[in-house]
Amino acid sequence: MTDLTRLTASEAAAQIAAGSLTSEALVSACLKRIAARDPALKAWAFVDPEIALAAARLCDAVARPLGPLHGVPVGIKDIIATADMPTGMGSPIYEGHRPLNDAACVAQIRAAGAVVLGKTVTVEFAGMAPPPTCNPHDPTRTPGGSSSGSGAAVADYHVPIAFGTQTAGSVHRPAAYCGIVGFKPGFDLYNLHGVRPAAQSLDTLGTLSRSIDDATLMMAVLVGRDYAPIPETASPPRIAFCKTHLWDAARPETVAAMEDARTRLSAAGAQIIELDLAPAFAELTPARDIMSSYERARATLWEFTHHRDLLSPQLQKAIEKGLGWSFEQYREAIAQGARCRGLLAEAFAGFDAIIAPATEGEAPVGLDSTGDHAFIGFWNLLHAPSFVLPTHRGPNNMPVALQMIGPYAGEDSLIAVAKWVAARLAPQG
Amino acid sequence: MTDLTRLTASEAAAQIAAGSLTSEALVSACLKRIAARDPALKAWAFVDPEIALAAARLCDAVARPLGPLHGVPVGIKDIIATADMPTGMGSPIYEGHRPLNDAACVAQIRAAGAVVLGKTVTVEFAGMAPPPTCNPHDPTRTPGGSSSGSGAAVADYHVPIAFGTQTAGSVHRPAAYCGIVGFKPGFDLYNLHGVRPAAQSLDTLGTLSRSIDDATLMMAVLVGRDYAPIPETASPPRIAFCKTHLWDAARPETVAAMEDARTRLSAAGAQIIELDLAPAFAELTPARDIMSSYERARATLWEFTHHRDLLSPQLQKAIEKGLGWSFEQYREAIAQGARCRGLLAEAFAGFDAIIAPATEGEAPVGLDSTGDHAFIGFWNLLHAPSFVLPTHRGPNNMPVALQMIGPYAGEDSLIAVAKWVAARLAPQG
Repeated sequence: MTDLTRLTASEAAAQIAAGSLTSEALVSACLKRIAARDPALKAWAFVDPEIALAAARLCDAVARPLGPLHGVPVGIKDIIATADMPTGMGSPIYEGHRPLNDAACVAQIRAAGAVVLGKTVTVEFAGMAPPPTCNPHDPTRTPGGSSSGSGAAVADYHVPIAFGTQTAGSVHRPAAYCGIVGFKPGFDLYNLHGVRPAAQSLDTLGTLSRSIDDATLMMAVLVGRDYAPIPETASPPRIAFCKTHLWDAARPETVAAMEDARTRLSAAGAQIIELDLAPAFAELTPARDIMSSYERARATLWEFTHHRDLLSPQLQKAIEKGLGWSFEQYREAIAQGARCRGLLAEAFAGFDAIIAPATEGEAPVGLDSTGDHAFIGFWNLLHAPSFVLPTHRGPNNMPVALQMIGPYAGEDSLIAVAKWVAARLAPQG
Repeated sequence: MTDLTRLTASEAAAQIAAGSLTSEALVSACLKRIAARDPALKAWAFVDPEIALAAARLCDAVARPLGPLHGVPVGIKDIIATADMPTGMGSPIYEGHRPLNDAACVAQIRAAGAVVLGKTVTVEFAGMAPPPTCNPHDPTRTPGGSSSGSGAAVADYHVPIAFGTQTAGSVHRPAAYCGIVGFKPGFDLYNLHGVRPAAQSLDTLGTLSRSIDDATLMMAVLVGRDYAPIPETASPPRIAFCKTHLWDAARPETVAAMEDARTRLSAAGAQIIELDLAPAFAELTPARDIMSSYERARATLWEFTHHRDLLSPQLQKAIEKGLGWSFEQYREAIAQGARCRGLLAEAFAGFDAIIAPATEGEAPVGLDSTGDHAFIGFWNLLHAPSFVLPTHRGPNNMPVALQMIGPYAGEDSLIAVAKWVAARLAPQG
């Protein structure tokens, strides 16, 4: 008998549309998996089986699919507003908080027929204090963050796809550590209304899923176009391998993954370019840190003023740091990002996509940190669309991922190249 | 005896800091003015004198100013979240809605000592359906929108300064029609957390005040620097006069204001440049319309799905239009904006600021429309900082304004040039 929880969102949507699967059966399977696994995994902040099943039965009762997500369960990071479920932001200040309205992205997926399965655990305000969520591949390790619950739940087959948000590495790090597909479009493409801001010049909504097609499906819903899978590039792409200024921090498994990818993609016919970024790009790491904490401090000022004792020590410290930057320092950080965006756009004339490390290595042991986001954060500041693909394994058999970056507004071509790459780097056996 | 309601925010802050004025006296004077005038003007969506007076007394009780707005009353557009006052969004769907937290900008001004006087009337979701607010110069005319209450309240001396937001012309149009100073910084400079989005790639927080210094004061608070008035440029600036592709729509009073300004500023020593924008800029008018309605439709999808009958016919139509644009059309509109931003940045090598029309002419008669935003909207898409300055009067003795646009990230130099210009165009007698 098929394990329905193994279906991807696009597979499930196709079967539901064809009448060979009911949303209720799929949602029931997901709920059973959650009941069995989540007491240990702690990926969910809120699940009410009755709400989810009622939505699934409604889907099954209508004559034709509402949209390309009809009947498909989706996990919602708990900084994203839902009118029928609490939105706790990972903070005791918002425990049980019930927004009046759905976030734009929630309204959009519901209009496309999706079933909101529940709210996934988030790091406090999508920041830095680690949540109790475990990595499904090894419960002694972090799933990454801040979209910790979305990463763990999708990797552990609780739900085929979930929303995450990224300010530094909050979509891609959990995707990499949990061994699934992370996707974020270019900055500002997906509507952020109802998503709690961390840093408004960096925040991007993204998805965690187990297939590239599912990221494509969600993009179709959110930008408002019909869904069809985007096929891989017809001819082998030109791929720039970029070690980045952080290469010294890459652990052996990341070094090995980059080398293996280069060898196999070259053998498959890809034109491989070595990309050495200009020294200006190294300054993006401190620039992103300034922008993020400057903006986060302002976005969290009400909580800092009225509920400081309910904020984690890490967040208090980040807010204090953010209030300490001068306007000139902030302005220079913004300008540095703009300069490098210009340089990156010029560089893309020479290749179709960049492959770069996603993380230093496997998910670290311990739940007292969600790991390091440096390999992701500076690309995020560049506003480019990007994937994390689960291509390799490390010495502890934990997932090791590669990051793929496309040009601004080049989501579709990036998807086509990512599919070409993923097919050629698929684990053997 | 001084009429305290005539004080600007910076004058009031200086007197309160010096101990020669109490916040309670100032707030009481504002409340009295509101009680006398607002039943006819309808600028306020919510004022609770006890809340405002309690905050003023708290200010008066502390030993030293909390910040540069200490004791100064501020009006808050009613799409901006306040924890202690309802935030109605100009929509029956949100009537009496009480957010859990303050918006970032409200938390920031409170941390700087400001007294939130109340919530000013907004057009429904900062969109297009006209509110009942009148123009204080002529109650048969619109005050403009969507920051209608902020414009009318500041112009009618209910409060020295108020927040507005601009997606097309929602700060500058009410400033122009009401004869006060409108200021919006470059896109994304002021924190938008807690401000209801209309269109996220266009929305900008701004201020309506009766002096340029007050806009500067608020900018200091919101970006986190000490406040000092920015003096006018030491030498006469280079000013580009730009009629724009919409010049045929300019009514005689706007044509006369542009001509008079050119003559007087030239006589005062300014170097005058004639700026003919490239034809690409004319395409920004339809591009902005596509971006705005595409994004607004998504940001309002929950209300459209669940409370369509409570939305104005205008908004329903705008949402339907926004859902009708294809992703390719939206993408092309975004790209058009980016191209013109590049062209504008190059053009700024030749001058310090641009002067352009703000509106077609005086505020139109009737409250069934908030007027036309075309002369403002396409500049807003360019993400540049800008002022509206109340420099002239029209045939009905209604205010006629000029718009001044500065380079991206050039707020401080724009302020200095605007002060030079305002001093030379001050009404005589």
